[in-house]
Amino acid sequence: MSWETLVEKHTVTVQAAIEAVRSRSFFAHWVEVPSGKVYGETANEDGRRRFEGLLGKPFPELLQVHDGFWGGHEVSPYGLPLKVEYPRTGLREAVEQAQRAQQQWQRLPVRQRAAVLVEALEQAAADFFTIAYATMYTTGQGFVMSFQASGPHAFDRALEAVATGVLALEAFAPEAVWTKPLGKGEVTVRKRFRAIPKGLGAVIGCSTFPLWNALPGVFANLITGNACLWKPHPAVILPVALFVARFQRSLDALGLNPHLLVLLSCTPEQPLTWEVAEHSAVRIVDYTGSPAFGTELERRLGGKVVFTEKAGVNSVIVHSVADVGAVVENLAFSFCLYSGQMCTAPQNLFVPEEGVGTGNGRLTPEEFVQRLLQAIDALVQNPKAGPPTLGAIQNERTLQRVREVEALGLPVLRASTPIQHPEFPEARTATPLFLEARWKEHRELYGREWFGPIAFVVRVPDAATAVAEVADLVRSAGALVTSVYSTDPAFREQAVESITAAGAPVALNFTGPIWINQSAAYSDFHGAGVNPAGNASFTDLAYVTARFGIVHVREVG
Amino acid sequence: MSWETLVEKHTVTVQAAIEAVRSRSFFAHWVEVPSGKVYGETANEDGRRRFEGLLGKPFPELLQVHDGFWGGHEVSPYGLPLKVEYPRTGLREAVEQAQRAQQQWQRLPVRQRAAVLVEALEQAAADFFTIAYATMYTTGQGFVMSFQASGPHAFDRALEAVATGVLALEAFAPEAVWTKPLGKGEVTVRKRFRAIPKGLGAVIGCSTFPLWNALPGVFANLITGNACLWKPHPAVILPVALFVARFQRSLDALGLNPHLLVLLSCTPEQPLTWEVAEHSAVRIVDYTGSPAFGTELERRLGGKVVFTEKAGVNSVIVHSVADVGAVVENLAFSFCLYSGQMCTAPQNLFVPEEGVGTGNGRLTPEEFVQRLLQAIDALVQNPKAGPPTLGAIQNERTLQRVREVEALGLPVLRASTPIQHPEFPEARTATPLFLEARWKEHRELYGREWFGPIAFVVRVPDAATAVAEVADLVRSAGALVTSVYSTDPAFREQAVESITAAGAPVALNFTGPIWINQSAAYSDFHGAGVNPAGNASFTDLAYVTARFGIVHVREVG
Repeated sequence: MSWETLVEKHTVTVQAAIEAVRSRSFFAHWVEVPSGKVYGETANEDGRRRFEGLLGKPFPELLQVHDGFWGGHEVSPYGLPLKVEYPRTGLREAVEQAQRAQQQWQRLPVRQRAAVLVEALEQAAADFFTIAYATMYTTGQGFVMSFQASGPHAFDRALEAVATGVLALEAFAPEAVWTKPLGKGEVTVRKRFRAIPKGLGAVIGCSTFPLWNALPGVFANLITGNACLWKPHPAVILPVALFVARFQRSLDALGLNPHLLVLLSCTPEQPLTWEVAEHSAVRIVDYTGSPAFGTELERRLGGKVVFTEKAGVNSVIVHSVADVGAVVENLAFSFCLYSGQMCTAPQNLFVPEEGVGTGNGRLTPEEFVQRLLQAIDALVQNPKAGPPTLGAIQNERTLQRVREVEALGLPVLRASTPIQHPEFPEARTATPLFLEARWKEHRELYGREWFGPIAFVVRVPDAATAVAEVADLVRSAGALVTSVYSTDPAFREQAVESITAAGAPVALNFTGPIWINQSAAYSDFHGAGVNPAGNASFTDLAYVTARFGIVHVREVG
Repeated sequence: MSWETLVEKHTVTVQAAIEAVRSRSFFAHWVEVPSGKVYGETANEDGRRRFEGLLGKPFPELLQVHDGFWGGHEVSPYGLPLKVEYPRTGLREAVEQAQRAQQQWQRLPVRQRAAVLVEALEQAAADFFTIAYATMYTTGQGFVMSFQASGPHAFDRALEAVATGVLALEAFAPEAVWTKPLGKGEVTVRKRFRAIPKGLGAVIGCSTFPLWNALPGVFANLITGNACLWKPHPAVILPVALFVARFQRSLDALGLNPHLLVLLSCTPEQPLTWEVAEHSAVRIVDYTGSPAFGTELERRLGGKVVFTEKAGVNSVIVHSVADVGAVVENLAFSFCLYSGQMCTAPQNLFVPEEGVGTGNGRLTPEEFVQRLLQAIDALVQNPKAGPPTLGAIQNERTLQRVREVEALGLPVLRASTPIQHPEFPEARTATPLFLEARWKEHRELYGREWFGPIAFVVRVPDAATAVAEVADLVRSAGALVTSVYSTDPAFREQAVESITAAGAPVALNFTGPIWINQSAAYSDFHGAGVNPAGNASFTDLAYVTARFGIVHVREVG
């Protein structure tokens, strides 16, 4: 395929993505429903079979040099070891190969890079179902979430990063004739401008959203001319390996060096994070994971470009509601989805002592909480909806955390118990734990993140106090989302004012099929970058522009 | 003045600046010639008198709280102590006041902020001549450079930062109605987006270009909603104090809190840099100064936004020239201007053993160097042009550095000597020192920065070797500029390819009134941000977008 043909092939997609990014309106290049009508009637079954065929053997599809060692230790939270082995590429070799690939890549004009990247995404999209099963079995997500979060939603986030990169790279004229008037005459300088990547880039993945949280950094690196090393979490490699293999093969088919994106497989004993992040050739590090580790990374990597997506304390404030049933149903799903293993899951629920106004009289705090817990019980006990909504607990330590917080002695409003998974009797599961915490007195507890199915109900004198407390928590612990329910426009605006000024987004009156856990590509900035929950934002201009610089060539005469 | 009137008043200016930034074409909002025709026939004399009236007393013009202590230790490199004292504002007080001012400021719409900032610049421009004298007497620059570098050129860099900030803040729609199609129907979310500053910002100034190097960071902070602390170099406070006072008064006149920009005066004993940079409320640090200190700052401030403009090793490669006279004249001025005390001054001259092609036969390396040194002698010995071109040596340590490098034993091609300044018999002066260094063997010497009037002539087997060496130096030591002379288009393109890929700009065949030392606002990116000479670039998108984040407000129903 000629460059013109390739660029032409994907122009509409790139332009549509750029337009969506600019306007923040709805756009989705890939269909989020794992439907046979869209993806072919056998796509699901084919994907499952391909996934099963990969288990128990060395993964053969990567196109990268390796040192002959193979390893892999993935064990599914649904209760089976995957026994897939990945080839090991030494860091030194990976850096050399990636640098070579970058030399070629950074010379391509931006629109050619964009076309190559969209082509690679399209090729990889053929593996949506396989990637979905790989994601489900490694992360513990339910199937539909696995499909969406590692498929269409993640790929749209990647395309969003490409579009934002193109926007940034085309913000200024690439050439200029600069004519300065002087007393008598003038002087002319001809100028050309070149974007030079800062890389190598390195992306450090997490164990819960292996593609969704990594692809923005990977594609922000690539569109701006950087080659990229991708180090997945040692417990969740397969979905990443599938993506990287497809990516490398599509580059190879275009006659490009596939080492532009290198998988650094690792093991729990050799997680490689520091070696990769501190390597002198690595100038850009993207990290998703725990606040403590992410903050340490930011501190130790001073002088490098570091983007973190950590986590904070996400709070819900209930002031008044129009339809209490719709509200508790929406909240129940948010608290249950993937057992709270999302950086956007709610943790704290602030309820005013004065009660919650409804269209139909006031509910006492107890009544409101009771309604919510009933909705949660109904969801988790629903044999069809419960198990896929909760999924499985990715990491044993998350269960330990549930035990640990239970042991603190706060009144238990709702106990966390395993549920029986109809398909996977060995699955590690846990329903949400709800504890009652006292405002101020227990701030050290509800004021920090408890990753997993752990929630605190905090009663406050009134909803305005909750707003002040949440704004404070945003400043001290960060937040990726906050949620406010109120039928009073003045109260809503005051909450918006306080919480956004503190640096967190606000969701107002979420009911129906829109949950605070979800963040829409092209429209919602995921992570504001201005509170302790992380300095990255998918995908603002800072997220792409920090990855390259512009050098000029000035010529007289 | 109403907000509408103010915004309207400066709309043309802001739009012209945005257009120039986009097109990289020539633009200057302020006239660079210190001419009575432009600025009024008495402007120079008035400015001088106002400057002299400030000497020997407390500086009374700032509108900021202070603790009652006054101090100041500026001694002019031209040989007189200024004896100006500045009020001390404690860091804690400064932070509190600036935070308060920021709360008000960050709520203003971006176009209002832009109008306020242009208004403040216009008001401060009334002090161009006073600021020029203050700059001259503190930095040792000649008068015309002082006028331009702290006046029109610096102010245009400030306006450039404002324009780039507006561009960035308006890149995405501020509101959206997001409608997602669902199987049967659709769901709509109304969204608003708010830019939230990361600040406080802090700008750490240098002793040679107190405004030119600081205003981009100050105005990039301000336009993106951050309040700013400005800590000048303890030896060069007066031009900064004059600017800040004008700025604060223009804010006050508009009914805004003048603590949006706070001067942190300091002394050589209490330089304050670390206290300010490491203060927890300071999230953005802009630094101009030495590579070693700047690198340490980058490292220790991991987790903050840090922009550095350090220095590197700027090299000139002479392959072939059309008009040797024009070339050596241009180079002579570049080597002499402000005695090499510019981060854009050339340090290394690479000349091929095979000689330099000219329109009129080949010159041996000796002959070419001889021609250059003759041009330098002619310039420095010219009683009219020499003293204002060289200016004075800002810091005694720069003279020590000249002695130190002389003592290394390299052959001296041109000795550094003081010159007699006609106006200032006590001026600290030094003409350029030229040493002969051997390629490779002396790389440790010419491969690092020697700030001041110090140059190395390095003979290389051929010009292609020089290109490889310069690209290597860019990677190891950084560079703000490189300069290539060649009449061979193929050689030029190869040089451009190698050096830009290494991360430095290239100037080709500079002759006439265009010098590599100068970087034009709106068109030249000053600092590429991709080599060790610094990570800041005046003014690319990264330089403004890192200073704010975007939070969204999503509303259902």
